[in-house]
Amino acid sequence: MRERVRVIVDAPWFQACVITLILVNAVILGAETSPRVTDSYGRLLRAVDLTILALFVLELGMRMYAHRREFFRDPWSWFDLVIVGIALLPASGPFSVLRVLRVLRVLRLLSVIPTLRHVVTGLFRALPGMMSILFLVILLLYVSAVMATELFADVSPQYFADLPASLFTLFQIATADGWGTIAKDVMEHKPMAWVFFVVFVLVSTLVALNLFIAVAVEALEKDDEESGGGGGGGGSAGRRGGGSDDGGPDGGQAVILAELRALRAEVAVLRREREEEASGLR
Amino acid sequence: MRERVRVIVDAPWFQACVITLILVNAVILGAETSPRVTDSYGRLLRAVDLTILALFVLELGMRMYAHRREFFRDPWSWFDLVIVGIALLPASGPFSVLRVLRVLRVLRLLSVIPTLRHVVTGLFRALPGMMSILFLVILLLYVSAVMATELFADVSPQYFADLPASLFTLFQIATADGWGTIAKDVMEHKPMAWVFFVVFVLVSTLVALNLFIAVAVEALEKDDEESGGGGGGGGSAGRRGGGSDDGGPDGGQAVILAELRALRAEVAVLRREREEEASGLR
Amino acid sequence: MRERVRVIVDAPWFQACVITLILVNAVILGAETSPRVTDSYGRLLRAVDLTILALFVLELGMRMYAHRREFFRDPWSWFDLVIVGIALLPASGPFSVLRVLRVLRVLRLLSVIPTLRHVVTGLFRALPGMMSILFLVILLLYVSAVMATELFADVSPQYFADLPASLFTLFQIATADGWGTIAKDVMEHKPMAWVFFVVFVLVSTLVALNLFIAVAVEALEKDDEESGGGGGGGGSAGRRGGGSDDGGPDGGQAVILAELRALRAEVAVLRREREEEASGLR
Amino acid sequence: MRERVRVIVDAPWFQACVITLILVNAVILGAETSPRVTDSYGRLLRAVDLTILALFVLELGMRMYAHRREFFRDPWSWFDLVIVGIALLPASGPFSVLRVLRVLRVLRLLSVIPTLRHVVTGLFRALPGMMSILFLVILLLYVSAVMATELFADVSPQYFADLPASLFTLFQIATADGWGTIAKDVMEHKPMAWVFFVVFVLVSTLVALNLFIAVAVEALEKDDEESGGGGGGGGSAGRRGGGSDDGGPDGGQAVILAELRALRAEVAVLRREREEEASGLR
Repeated sequence: MRERVRVIVDAPWFQACVITLILVNAVILGAETSPRVTDSYGRLLRAVDLTILALFVLELGMRMYAHRREFFRDPWSWFDLVIVGIALLPASGPFSVLRVLRVLRVLRLLSVIPTLRHVVTGLFRALPGMMSILFLVILLLYVSAVMATELFADVSPQYFADLPASLFTLFQIATADGWGTIAKDVMEHKPMAWVFFVVFVLVSTLVALNLFIAVAVEALEKDDEESGGGGGGGGSAGRRGGGSDDGGPDGGQAVILAELRALRAEVAVLRREREEEASGLR
Repeated sequence: MRERVRVIVDAPWFQACVITLILVNAVILGAETSPRVTDSYGRLLRAVDLTILALFVLELGMRMYAHRREFFRDPWSWFDLVIVGIALLPASGPFSVLRVLRVLRVLRLLSVIPTLRHVVTGLFRALPGMMSILFLVILLLYVSAVMATELFADVSPQYFADLPASLFTLFQIATADGWGTIAKDVMEHKPMAWVFFVVFVLVSTLVALNLFIAVAVEALEKDDEESGGGGGGGGSAGRRGGGSDDGGPDGGQAVILAELRALRAEVAVLRREREEEASGLR
Repeated sequence: MRERVRVIVDAPWFQACVITLILVNAVILGAETSPRVTDSYGRLLRAVDLTILALFVLELGMRMYAHRREFFRDPWSWFDLVIVGIALLPASGPFSVLRVLRVLRVLRLLSVIPTLRHVVTGLFRALPGMMSILFLVILLLYVSAVMATELFADVSPQYFADLPASLFTLFQIATADGWGTIAKDVMEHKPMAWVFFVVFVLVSTLVALNLFIAVAVEALEKDDEESGGGGGGGGSAGRRGGGSDDGGPDGGQAVILAELRALRAEVAVLRREREEEASGLR
Repeated sequence: MRERVRVIVDAPWFQACVITLILVNAVILGAETSPRVTDSYGRLLRAVDLTILALFVLELGMRMYAHRREFFRDPWSWFDLVIVGIALLPASGPFSVLRVLRVLRVLRLLSVIPTLRHVVTGLFRALPGMMSILFLVILLLYVSAVMATELFADVSPQYFADLPASLFTLFQIATADGWGTIAKDVMEHKPMAWVFFVVFVLVSTLVALNLFIAVAVEALEKDDEESGGGGGGGGSAGRRGGGSDDGGPDGGQAVILAELRALRAEVAVLRREREEEASGLR
């Protein structure tokens, strides 16, 4: 029985059905944003929406039944569970914001389509490498915001009234959006404020640059690992080895490898001859 | 006869003529945007424009006649056909927007000049590698737009009135253009809206960064493939091998290869000596 | 005695205490920006702040006593000394701006947490490589500002009144923030001003691009150095060699290295046999 | 005599003098932008300015005399000649704009300081590789500007009145500066205009991305060439070989090279033994 459910759950047509349901749901959730559409077809849309939600619950139940423990080991299962769970919560009264989160159901495409899943996993895997530099960014933002509030709260309450306002403004400046206007506003009363803004723009650009490069270098390395790990002849190829011989190294390395193998073949001939000769001598 | 047309069509002077025609056409189409010029020389310009169009049709006809089936196999031929075809359509009444598309004829330079053709082909070849991440971008944009419409349609109809308006606004925010102003406008009524905007800016920057790096990594790989594929000695250089010996590997690899070849020569000497010796012994 | 202090100072729990103190201090400094909080708990906050400052002085004194000369050799110690020293200066009257710099104490996290220290050291190490191109940027900014002041001071005093104003405006334009508005303002009176602005935007983008690439290339090289420096068999691996055998080269190189070692083993066997044989012949 | 002048001209102290003169000149040209300074010290500044100009002419004359033909072969000499020549032209009446170009003299630092010269040469060397993609950019800008003028000239004359205005506006949009405002302005009358703007922003971003990557790839290659071109043992290292042995390859390649040399040494021993043995046999 469990085996049969598993076959169904893992079948390509089952995946296709789920994808279709998600896409239909996406269209419905989009249509529901228009008051005109809701006035005419509101009931129908809500009915379909509920049906699809029921089917999602059924699907998750089937997958849970089929894969048992393995289901809970996959973080993507938890992602699905949380997203469908949100839709089941009552969304009235103080929790009306949860109604908005229903649209996150469309993100289930990320967990269902393998290539998208791969891309998102890649994004998350890049995160730990950025952690220390991200912490640095937050630290700089916090220190700058405290300074900006103390310095500019009185002259430019529009941007630096309190700590949260300063944090928002500095985040906006760090994305280089309209910082000139903000700086000009402050500099009208405190002409030396340009020191703060120019230093902040330069430092945040430099740090962002390094964050960027850190991610790029990691991506290039990961790429090397993935594409370039053919485990040649021996066992000393290390943790990166393990691929097939021919798909391994890239470009010029292929030439070197070819040369190297020809050389090895030649030495092998040399050795075999010597062994034959030696056996002949004896 | 067909052979003669083919010789003409493939001749460099023919290409040069076509390029000249396109450039002249570009100048005319530019001049026609000025009412002052159209008032004085409108007729002349239109006459030249029509003549050049006729010459384009003739040129395409000749190429079709000369290359027959091969003509239709090249996607660039279809590009030329569509562009010239648009100019032949009646551009009056409801189709007046087609008149504007006449200027696309200038893009024929892309198909005629080989280096440009190469660049554009490169751009298109990079597209499939970006497909999954582009789909991710669209998905995020759609989900965010539905949420933004539900959350902000009442307080900021200027930016989030309906789904298309939200999509446009969020696309604008993703390009980091004036998002501070938009966020401030919404936050006046919904102070917690900063959560949405900051998360959206961070996620879209992160995804854009990864899109960027994916393209860069692909470009670097393609570059390696193109420049680094010298097929050294053996046949195991794989799909990347095939270039000439000397142009192959880059930098330090050249040193290694040189070293390797010297070594192989030495081993070859060793072997030859041994064979001579062996034949002397027998 | 000195040894005992050193053990305490270098203990992980001591580091953890210092980190906790800094974080508490950060929260206090943030809370002090809010007038409402200062009104209610101002005294308490100032007392805790002073206590933490005293603890910082004690900590630095202990580290100075424990490590003596080595303490002063580490640039991070100087960083700590300067930051704590600023807090000890009287912050009244003309030096009231120093009060604002108290928040820099939070940056002590950079010197205390090893990974952050590593990131910041990396940022500073990238600086010398960027020096010449940074000087180029400053030179271009200065020359452009002199030209802009001479050309536009009379028509657009809002942006180009004098040299400092022009420098600020051009820095703003170089970050691509609102340059269209500025250029339009000037072009109303001097229609040819677009030449200046378009050239400036293009050149500054090109130079910024090169600055960026210079940093990226350096980062990639440094990365290669760090990850790829396994000192194989001989001593000629140069300044970059020195790591362990197995962690050394990346991707395809691992394959080549494995092949190479197998080959070397084969040659070694060949040689050993020959030596045995030779000793047998004699 | 010529030899003596050459020794002077190439001496480090001579270079230092010229750099000092340029820096002094830079300060004077900056000071002259302030009306207050010109009112008080205008005469003095102009006198010093003229003296420095005379010294520049003298310096160029000496270098011309000393290096003769070689002087004119170096493009940097032409750069110096043009810049000093501009300052000698009469800057009154219709040529008053030339007065502004006097400040370009400060750019002589680029030709005098070797590291800056190197950076700028690098920038220019990257240009040919970008030519085809730059031409593509210009082509797209022109075609889009013609279309935008035809489509939007009547509804948004502020931005798209004629071809030059459209070109400027689209260049501004391509730098992502305030495009949202421009697009909104047009969309008020032509709601479908978003198609044009979104496509233009996407295409220009994609092309800019590729321009960027083309430059980066070229820079990485050049870097490889410069740092990695040790010409190992043989002559087949190609155009890239030619550096010294030890400084050549990077990271993992150093390991491989070390391994390779150890191997070669081993084979050499093998061969020497064999030769000794062979001579002993005969």
